Amino acid sequence: MTVTNHQFRLAARPVGLPKREDWSYTEEPVREPADGELLVKVLYLSLDPAMRGWMNEGKSYIPPVGLGEVMRAGGVGKVVSSKHPGFKAGDFVMGTFGVQEYALSNGKGVVQVDPRIAPLPVYLGTLGMPGFTAYFGLLDIGQPKAGETVVVSGAAGAVGTVVGQIAKLKGCRVVGIAGGPDKCRFIVEELGFDAAIDYKSDDVKKALRTHCPKGVDVYFDNVGGDILDAVLTQINLRARIIICGAISQYNATGPAKGPSNYMSLLVNRASMTGMIVFDYADRYPEAAREMAGWLTAGKLKSREDIAQGFQTFPETFLKLFKGENTGKLVLEVAKD
Amino acid sequence: MTVTNHQFRLAARPVGLPKREDWSYTEEPVREPADGELLVKVLYLSLDPAMRGWMNEGKSYIPPVGLGEVMRAGGVGKVVSSKHPGFKAGDFVMGTFGVQEYALSNGKGVVQVDPRIAPLPVYLGTLGMPGFTAYFGLLDIGQPKAGETVVVSGAAGAVGTVVGQIAKLKGCRVVGIAGGPDKCRFIVEELGFDAAIDYKSDDVKKALRTHCPKGVDVYFDNVGGDILDAVLTQINLRARIIICGAISQYNATGPAKGPSNYMSLLVNRASMTGMIVFDYADRYPEAAREMAGWLTAGKLKSREDIAQGFQTFPETFLKLFKGENTGKLVLEVAKD
Repeated sequence: MTVTNHQFRLAARPVGLPKREDWSYTEEPVREPADGELLVKVLYLSLDPAMRGWMNEGKSYIPPVGLGEVMRAGGVGKVVSSKHPGFKAGDFVMGTFGVQEYALSNGKGVVQVDPRIAPLPVYLGTLGMPGFTAYFGLLDIGQPKAGETVVVSGAAGAVGTVVGQIAKLKGCRVVGIAGGPDKCRFIVEELGFDAAIDYKSDDVKKALRTHCPKGVDVYFDNVGGDILDAVLTQINLRARIIICGAISQYNATGPAKGPSNYMSLLVNRASMTGMIVFDYADRYPEAAREMAGWLTAGKLKSREDIAQGFQTFPETFLKLFKGENTGKLVLEVAKD
Repeated sequence: MTVTNHQFRLAARPVGLPKREDWSYTEEPVREPADGELLVKVLYLSLDPAMRGWMNEGKSYIPPVGLGEVMRAGGVGKVVSSKHPGFKAGDFVMGTFGVQEYALSNGKGVVQVDPRIAPLPVYLGTLGMPGFTAYFGLLDIGQPKAGETVVVSGAAGAVGTVVGQIAKLKGCRVVGIAGGPDKCRFIVEELGFDAAIDYKSDDVKKALRTHCPKGVDVYFDNVGGDILDAVLTQINLRARIIICGAISQYNATGPAKGPSNYMSLLVNRASMTGMIVFDYADRYPEAAREMAGWLTAGKLKSREDIAQGFQTFPETFLKLFKGENTGKLVLEVAKD
């Protein structure tokens, strides 16, 4: 059997929002797995804001994707054939398979997933990196206590939806910042946030004053820019700010906007700490177990925004930066 | 005996650098202390960058100085007369006496100082708030470990000189950032820093790369602005940044410059934490004891920059923002 694989490779380092021409679409046959390898048919690809950073040159927490290389991405798939002792044909697996239809892997970083516990796309969201990011960022760095006020931006996104729900489970008042009335309604009515701020139509600073009458104790920042600055004006003594992302700045062509109000950290003896989920790799099972328990018990809702069609990858990816997704953005590559 | 007191009162909220007209110079008789009060003749006044912040309206870690009020300042003086059980005439004391020649006090926050242990101005510097700021900011928040690299800005100032010397005592590589060749020579040759960067003539980022070949583990920031941004590009994994001040921004008339490179916190899982020395009030004796020990043993050098003449207060204060002082800036108000 000869399998034909299609791939999106990085053709150029984008300036601003990535364009079609920044990608090359390639086709090649896939060889059979060698000893110790497995071949995976990719079913769902994870589309994450962080991928934009991986497209830039320069030192970061992970090497950049090289020009001509298949774009890095997490995915869920089904094992087609295996010469790896840990996997057999028919297994469902999650790993960094890249933006392609088939992936050969030596098994490193590949884990089995169980579609009876949750639908496959959930393993790219709530039970995957975004969920773990929310879990460790909020609990480990944010250290929220019952009764405190937690604010999260990008609140209707893959990470934000989980941050807010966990904070509610911990007894906090939770205010989400999101774009547009639909997302705001979603996080309050479906996810149980106490309030939502629509940054596209509200005066964020004023709205924070209204919805956080006791100030902000924990801020989980996914967006940076003006919203980070607005929240900095409302933080409490010893507030904890988790820097998880800055999606408002990822496509900036000039220098990023730094938080002008950062001296509020001094006034309030507050902290701002960066986090990368990979640091918690040895604790993923703990997070997975606890969150699967919450999901099963109906205490945590997972939302995926599933786009169709592998060829739409370049355009679908941009939905993240246009704020067009609600919940985890996933690209369906193939039906099982 | 009628004592005549002179005072500098805040006449207007300054825009940018404080001008003469922002102050009013007043004269009034001082009454005798009532029961529970003491009268202090101020000998030395502490001039601190933080005082600029107290002149602005708005919420901060301490209420602003009101218009028409005597400007707030720390000082050292001699008790003239006392109806307070804890003090007697002739005692040397330190407290927040304000920018005036005589102060009546109820004794709150006033502590005895001993001129046999250190000259009086040292109690406004190394054995006072700036020294305690250095001590707790570096050790408590920075948590430097032997072998790590510590960078401090405002390195030739009251806080910076102490930060660098304590970091050396703890076995760290210490790099100071200061303005001009004299200050740079001073911190290396007299205080024992490993290297100095002259921000007025060096490319700070390049110089950091040269002098911190293993990167920056702890950055004690007194200045903010472009220097904070430069250091952010050179920090190590899990670096700790102490936000103690931002003197480059205190007289800004527009919004402060936020650190554009703050996403380096995420890439490096680093933190940026604000500190105010007042939070450590119950531990001042610990710091005073340890630092007095170092001073006596010759392991810590204290440097004061003593200006003369009470009437020069408005101009002398500006030396801080023009970078004209080396060590702790003190105004001598009267001879003992």
